[in-house]
Amino acid sequence: MTSQLLPWPEIQQVLIDQSLTVISDRSQLDKLSLDYFHFSPILDHQLREKRGNLVVRPQTEAEVILVAQTCVNYRIPLTVRGAGTGNYGQCIPLDGGIILDLSQLNQILELKPGFIRAEPGVKMATIDKKSQQIGWELRMAPSTYRTATIGGFIGGGSVGMGSVNYGLISDRGNVQALRIVTLEDTPQIIELRGDETQAVIHSYGTNGIITQLEIPLAPVYPWAELIVTFDDFSQAINFGQALSESSGIVKKQVAIHTAAIAQYFVALKDYLSPKKDFALLMVSEYDLEAVKALIQEYSGKITYLKNAEEASKHNSLLEFNWNHTTLLARSIDPSLTYLQVFYWTVEKVEQLYQYFGDEVMIHLEFIRVDGKVIPAGLPLVHFTTEERLNEIIAYHQNQGTGIANPHVYTIEEGGSGHTNPEQLAFKKQVDPYGLMNPGKMKAWSI
Amino acid sequence: MTSQLLPWPEIQQVLIDQSLTVISDRSQLDKLSLDYFHFSPILDHQLREKRGNLVVRPQTEAEVILVAQTCVNYRIPLTVRGAGTGNYGQCIPLDGGIILDLSQLNQILELKPGFIRAEPGVKMATIDKKSQQIGWELRMAPSTYRTATIGGFIGGGSVGMGSVNYGLISDRGNVQALRIVTLEDTPQIIELRGDETQAVIHSYGTNGIITQLEIPLAPVYPWAELIVTFDDFSQAINFGQALSESSGIVKKQVAIHTAAIAQYFVALKDYLSPKKDFALLMVSEYDLEAVKALIQEYSGKITYLKNAEEASKHNSLLEFNWNHTTLLARSIDPSLTYLQVFYWTVEKVEQLYQYFGDEVMIHLEFIRVDGKVIPAGLPLVHFTTEERLNEIIAYHQNQGTGIANPHVYTIEEGGSGHTNPEQLAFKKQVDPYGLMNPGKMKAWSI
Repeated sequence: MTSQLLPWPEIQQVLIDQSLTVISDRSQLDKLSLDYFHFSPILDHQLREKRGNLVVRPQTEAEVILVAQTCVNYRIPLTVRGAGTGNYGQCIPLDGGIILDLSQLNQILELKPGFIRAEPGVKMATIDKKSQQIGWELRMAPSTYRTATIGGFIGGGSVGMGSVNYGLISDRGNVQALRIVTLEDTPQIIELRGDETQAVIHSYGTNGIITQLEIPLAPVYPWAELIVTFDDFSQAINFGQALSESSGIVKKQVAIHTAAIAQYFVALKDYLSPKKDFALLMVSEYDLEAVKALIQEYSGKITYLKNAEEASKHNSLLEFNWNHTTLLARSIDPSLTYLQVFYWTVEKVEQLYQYFGDEVMIHLEFIRVDGKVIPAGLPLVHFTTEERLNEIIAYHQNQGTGIANPHVYTIEEGGSGHTNPEQLAFKKQVDPYGLMNPGKMKAWSI
Repeated sequence: MTSQLLPWPEIQQVLIDQSLTVISDRSQLDKLSLDYFHFSPILDHQLREKRGNLVVRPQTEAEVILVAQTCVNYRIPLTVRGAGTGNYGQCIPLDGGIILDLSQLNQILELKPGFIRAEPGVKMATIDKKSQQIGWELRMAPSTYRTATIGGFIGGGSVGMGSVNYGLISDRGNVQALRIVTLEDTPQIIELRGDETQAVIHSYGTNGIITQLEIPLAPVYPWAELIVTFDDFSQAINFGQALSESSGIVKKQVAIHTAAIAQYFVALKDYLSPKKDFALLMVSEYDLEAVKALIQEYSGKITYLKNAEEASKHNSLLEFNWNHTTLLARSIDPSLTYLQVFYWTVEKVEQLYQYFGDEVMIHLEFIRVDGKVIPAGLPLVHFTTEERLNEIIAYHQNQGTGIANPHVYTIEEGGSGHTNPEQLAFKKQVDPYGLMNPGKMKAWSI
């Protein structure tokens, strides 16, 4: 049955009778049914009309269980939502139903050196603010981390600043435990530890409702922020690789942008030039002297340098990287879209740069994959047609790069790129009726 | 002129008249002329008779300058010494002269988060003890770090625990500044910063007398210590590589030993077995759960696990790794010697393991080189003849491994493996008479 045929007035009353916060206001429903899928013209076309029927905003795990039970009883599709900062349509309800907004499940339960236990709705920047007081911070965070929730990042995210050190959120060790509520006939609470959490990480909320989580933290450094310009693209990308591989230099963020992207960073216009490729960096203040020597070696020019204290008074350069690059570019030219590419080597970057020119504007983010730092990236694409976009993707794949295609909304075709038998098996256990974010796990739908 | 022809009674009187601490006692001279070169039967043969004529033990930089001036005035060879824990004969005086023992130049001048400025004679363990109180510690340290001095490590060392993260001491950023006294006609004080320090790092005291140094520190973790045994050598070495490359697991020390080495670790006999290969590890307590999952994946068995607090009450496993492996093995079988090998890949390790069997007992230390973690090692060698040793070395080289030959005493043929034009040029400036540790920089001697 589709959600439209469910007895919604009755369901709403059941939820209200249980003292749950229920939102049925049209404009709120519109807002809370969406994320940033519209970065993709393909997804925009497919998803823009999708809406949930009701939003429920629990305050406690007990309330989550009540919602879960109601969903099972009525066979209601349930889509979990953090702050809705994803770009793959992770939290778009394909078949209506209940949107479970976890933003009020936002308590930090335990914080100690190297460790935090929290509810999923805590904003990532809030974690940093609290944990930095005891000398620790998140191992990684996306450019949206001022609004993004930690649960949303674990459920739908993958990498961010810090990934040059700690890799992907799914790398063993980066999530220590997840506590979830299931959608079984009688919803259960399950605590997953260590490798068991892989069944839930990056599963778009198809495998249980995260109600608590444990993650390890990273030691705080005073992060200086730098903009460096280069006359030569090859020098710029090789600098990025070299900095990322400099064992004696502690860094958190290494992004390289082709010169054409400068036009979209209006707030940085005093530090950029339309003809110069550039790096946006966060490095340890303690290693600034070494960083400067490396910059000199690659003929870079520092146009912006703020020590950690100064940087904290301004918008972080983080907010020009990752998918904030795309956000800012699209605010100037809404016809732009993007890709997510694992280039593996700077030689491959160079080759694709030469081939596509400014049709595909290179934006690199260096991340650690299997212990080695590689150039990944979110290049900006001048969108013309879906056919041409697919051609561009196919060319990238034929050249041996990996594409996490941001123009599809299933887990398998998008972020992870492959079927995960462990996630499928786990879904059979925790969501036997297939109510959780239906349509997102392709292996289930088939 | 050789040192023997110098007017030693007059020189001694000059030094004493300047209120310097001068040691001429035979047994002290014997002791302070030596290091651990005797790990190599070749070096033992070449160096065992080498002695300085006098030892001077300055308390201050001003006293260092007095010694430097005296050396220049009389053209006396000068060999700088820390704790004498090197293995390449770094501080063996080939042509007598003055031994400059810097162990009393041992003040910590400034300590703050991420940074220490110190004199060269501070023991590395002393730095850790002080800096750990404010949450920081050395980025890397050798197995001798309870006695080794920081100046000695910079002048003659290269890697150690922590190098799995921070690479070599010569990697850009790992030394921020060195202050040296020259042996010019009028000795000068020079402060070298950043890349300039490369002229002095790992130059065996041929390029100025280090009197102060600045190094960055690493954040402290509670380091748990583990021994893990494996039934299968291939599993053991692949585990070592996998742990080293696990971005989500923070570690400080990853060593893998072939089963045959167990017999030499008497103090660990309860945790080892003559037929099992084993790993000696230091990992962050915060990541123990992830480490255990990885161990399970490679069919390892944990036989020893101490959390950081327990570990601090025992001898660290560090003191069974690096060249302490060789030290302990030789204490049982003095006919053993060793190599220093960059294997680059575990496949190469496997191949050499199969080829040599227990004639060359594999002992791996994983270190970061150019940003990638590779298996390096100090395999134990059953020494028979110099010819056979050279055959073994040649075979390793022919198979594509790198050898830092510990059976030669020049900088070029030993540690660094090549002539360093920058170090040579700098020596012409700071040591125009070639008085500093003569014979060690091959490019100068030619």
